Amino acid sequence: MTYCLGMLLEDGLVFAADSRTNAGVDHIATFRKLAVFERPGERVRVLLSAGSLATSQAVVSLVSERLGARKGEDSLFKSRTMFNAARIVGRALREVDDADAEHVRAQGADPGASFILGGQIKGRAPRLFQIYGAGNFIEATPETPYLQIGETKYGKPILDRLLNHRTLMPAAVKCALLSFDSTMRSNLSVGLPIDILCYRGDSFASDHRFQITDDDPYFTQIRERYSAGIDKLFDRLPEPDWDI
Amino acid sequence: MTYCLGMLLEDGLVFAADSRTNAGVDHIATFRKLAVFERPGERVRVLLSAGSLATSQAVVSLVSERLGARKGEDSLFKSRTMFNAARIVGRALREVDDADAEHVRAQGADPGASFILGGQIKGRAPRLFQIYGAGNFIEATPETPYLQIGETKYGKPILDRLLNHRTLMPAAVKCALLSFDSTMRSNLSVGLPIDILCYRGDSFASDHRFQITDDDPYFTQIRERYSAGIDKLFDRLPEPDWDI
Repeated sequence: MTYCLGMLLEDGLVFAADSRTNAGVDHIATFRKLAVFERPGERVRVLLSAGSLATSQAVVSLVSERLGARKGEDSLFKSRTMFNAARIVGRALREVDDADAEHVRAQGADPGASFILGGQIKGRAPRLFQIYGAGNFIEATPETPYLQIGETKYGKPILDRLLNHRTLMPAAVKCALLSFDSTMRSNLSVGLPIDILCYRGDSFASDHRFQITDDDPYFTQIRERYSAGIDKLFDRLPEPDWDI
Repeated sequence: MTYCLGMLLEDGLVFAADSRTNAGVDHIATFRKLAVFERPGERVRVLLSAGSLATSQAVVSLVSERLGARKGEDSLFKSRTMFNAARIVGRALREVDDADAEHVRAQGADPGASFILGGQIKGRAPRLFQIYGAGNFIEATPETPYLQIGETKYGKPILDRLLNHRTLMPAAVKCALLSFDSTMRSNLSVGLPIDILCYRGDSFASDHRFQITDDDPYFTQIRERYSAGIDKLFDRLPEPDWDI
């Protein structure tokens, strides 16, 4: 299983993806689930993927191969809007689905995959999309400033409590890491390292990438302090005065 | 959707169930999802249900009708062990499934249901089971002291952080309510009131029942204080000193 998260902030975009891929607990591998397509100074697109690794890798390969395509409707480097970029990913997903899904299902496996695509094209605002397994998609808004794919539920309450569109980027990263911490505590199939990419609006550069590994001192510190803080908070809350 | 939770504690058992049933957001109703079968002083069984309301009500009806059956293998009032009681529920579920599932699926609906069954028979220890849609089941243990059915994931991290087998009953109730709070914040289809039943080991009585409604002062207090506490805790955690 996978957990990927994208945030649409006033400051820009934050992307986070774990790198655990598994097909049963005895076969766990790590793969990057975060791909970047950029022309520095002009456009940046970040693609996170969840679901069938074969399907998601095929989609990333198709999209990559077509970066040089002549038509804007085929190439992430030429599409004029983020909306069109999301359509390119959705169409690639349908193409892979048409080619493979039936065969995969015949083996009893699930060919489904989903994506988060975010980025910015010069002269336009940063945007963030979630592309469903059917190739259609939704867009994040200031009211719903984050999108999740994969194993999404364990890490959602913390986002609902702590994140909004105006959260500053360092606090948003902290919030993302706590969302991953909650997920990893409840589901072994989501695991370290976590890839993080912070994109500042109008920077047109993707160079703020970070990888959180097992021994990352910052992650260790906040997960331990958060956990201890929750314990203390819980202890301080009154207990019911019921007759039990 | 539903969220139901059962806890196996050193002190006894705690059961909690929301009462929202919905078939689409425009059709929301409340039903009790907590049923009690007891012979005070001798045996207590508590059954929580999630999933298709038609299926789960039919199972509860079948089990109720057979309380007077002669054979221990049919009647919750006569079965000698909690294990046998779980089998009775599992068999009733298979019976309903055989009768209805095909017809329900033909309409594009999901006939699935699942259950939590807990209780105690005189001379034996309290036990807690989760009965899957297929009628098979698992049992809670001191190492895994809680079981959930329905919309389980949003409320799981808080249990993993705060609950263990030796948690005292009042603290366990507080923990259950915070787990429901997290679930209701992230999923509108789980809603108040929450039915709670606290069963003290060897009491053989089910009279500690509580209903948490909209204006419950204790629930309001702990959800507000917990939320404010999390905000404060989050603010106090250091932010990454990354270049972002």
